[in-house]
Amino acid sequence: MNDTASYTTKGKPFERDMTYLPDRILAGDRSADPLDDAHPSGSKDSPRDVPVWDVAPGRYRLVAARACPWAHRSIIVRSLLGLEDAISWGAPGPTHDQRSWTFDLDPGGVDPVLGIERLQQAYLARQPDYSRGITVPAIVEVESGKVVTNDFPQITHDLFFEWRDHQRDDVPDLWPADVREEMESVMKRVFTEVNNGVYRCGFAGSQEAYDDAYDRLFTALDWLEERLADRRFLMGEAITEADVRLFTTLVRFDAVYHGHFKCNRNKLTEMPNLWGYARDLFQTPGFGDEVDFEQIKRHYYVVHTDINPTQIVPAGPDESGWTTPHGRG
Amino acid sequence: MNDTASYTTKGKPFERDMTYLPDRILAGDRSADPLDDAHPSGSKDSPRDVPVWDVAPGRYRLVAARACPWAHRSIIVRSLLGLEDAISWGAPGPTHDQRSWTFDLDPGGVDPVLGIERLQQAYLARQPDYSRGITVPAIVEVESGKVVTNDFPQITHDLFFEWRDHQRDDVPDLWPADVREEMESVMKRVFTEVNNGVYRCGFAGSQEAYDDAYDRLFTALDWLEERLADRRFLMGEAITEADVRLFTTLVRFDAVYHGHFKCNRNKLTEMPNLWGYARDLFQTPGFGDEVDFEQIKRHYYVVHTDINPTQIVPAGPDESGWTTPHGRG
Repeated sequence: MNDTASYTTKGKPFERDMTYLPDRILAGDRSADPLDDAHPSGSKDSPRDVPVWDVAPGRYRLVAARACPWAHRSIIVRSLLGLEDAISWGAPGPTHDQRSWTFDLDPGGVDPVLGIERLQQAYLARQPDYSRGITVPAIVEVESGKVVTNDFPQITHDLFFEWRDHQRDDVPDLWPADVREEMESVMKRVFTEVNNGVYRCGFAGSQEAYDDAYDRLFTALDWLEERLADRRFLMGEAITEADVRLFTTLVRFDAVYHGHFKCNRNKLTEMPNLWGYARDLFQTPGFGDEVDFEQIKRHYYVVHTDINPTQIVPAGPDESGWTTPHGRG
Repeated sequence: MNDTASYTTKGKPFERDMTYLPDRILAGDRSADPLDDAHPSGSKDSPRDVPVWDVAPGRYRLVAARACPWAHRSIIVRSLLGLEDAISWGAPGPTHDQRSWTFDLDPGGVDPVLGIERLQQAYLARQPDYSRGITVPAIVEVESGKVVTNDFPQITHDLFFEWRDHQRDDVPDLWPADVREEMESVMKRVFTEVNNGVYRCGFAGSQEAYDDAYDRLFTALDWLEERLADRRFLMGEAITEADVRLFTTLVRFDAVYHGHFKCNRNKLTEMPNLWGYARDLFQTPGFGDEVDFEQIKRHYYVVHTDINPTQIVPAGPDESGWTTPHGRG
């Protein structure tokens, strides 16, 4: 998500910079989500008076690295909603140069639509003195080459509520109104304790900060393990945004968080409900399709030189279990 | 085992310095092992014409850290043979100062028998210009305070063959003559591919060296998994030296080698025969008694700053499985 070279601060717990470019792409003057004011989705509960851009097929490009869990959310949601023709996708490679994400997987190292080598160029086009992290996902206006927003929870929210006219007919209801209140609370806990919790383990700057993060993470995973004992998905029998958000951490758990981030009380494969649930999602079109374990591992083990100075990428774990029958549903 | 501050050499595979002080403590003029010449046990297949010291109860002290797998062999064998009264044991703490192993767990930070703070003092007493690693296990003559030998495979071999007059009556035959040939071959493969194989993964200085070490390690573990399908122990129905040598790596596998050394195709707990076998041994008096997972983890994660610069020690894995029924025998 981030481009700085040092991820840990000695003596300190990890704190994620949650300030993003908060612009929104909306279908009208106001959000189409009737609960938008009650449940703001922006990373900092963004104020509602932000610059607004119009929904328009072909106008924007989603820049999202397969390696990054925050970007992965938008890749999955775009696919679940059938927005592939409306919003194109550019995929930076798994590792960074000093200026962060690059299009090193593309021919000539240049994104074929935006014509840039580094995502940083789109951030500087938007704001010449931009000094925060060059993060993915980022939505870029193709014509101007400017980043519109990198506010990841807002992006997936708005893909669902604002792009309805351009979605497939039979899309899942990722934000069901009848369980919205509870879903917001589940997503909040999943974010602080799990999605960001693994980073709080891995980037802890002290033993105390790590121990605290580890306890919080596994307390939350135990809660999820129990929750999934009698629910196929987090909110019941259908897939929602909450599942997308949990999945992107679970699919990376054994590959990177377990060893590299020391989230090692047990592997995901040792929590039967979570493991069955994660496989159930993995085998659902839109979820597993774009998972690339090699890119995921290369990203974490090569980029975070302050916790893996050798940059050696582990050959394991054996990922063949992901396609085995999940026994749920 | 070693005291240098850098364990990896960029671009190079890990190579263990196998030169030790080769002196032997014998019961007579020649080794009591009739196969001693055919199967030399010293780390470098030591020449037989080495300085010889006499077996004598109370004369020597075994210095062996609980954390270290090479030292752990001698702790187990001393216990299996009932040599506790004949040879005392000093246990350095899990971490090092710049000059290696210290007696920081003892009152005042001083070994109560040898009266030294650092094991290095016993090496320098033996050889004032001693410049190799300050390793455990080391057998020290109490009166002179000098290291007699630190040649770990020779130490356990000689505890068995040379100290017979001081062993318990009912000791296991750790070196059975009828399978000796095969056992030597098994032990050799276990040493190069597993005992040292995990270090070749963890201290690899290049991706290529790591990948090669990983393949060799798991090829050997697959061979052992199959071998243990129809044998309770490595050489059949009874415990031998070969089991001692494999056990000290297996008991550390999930705690340190899996994550810290990137030996992560799978955990030990995911290989049913090896996991049952390891628990069988763990629950046998002499094996599990002195295992201290906290010391093991602190040693690896704190000492190897070039692969874990934060020195944060993982809270996992959950080790409660070690005392569950093993279903073997």
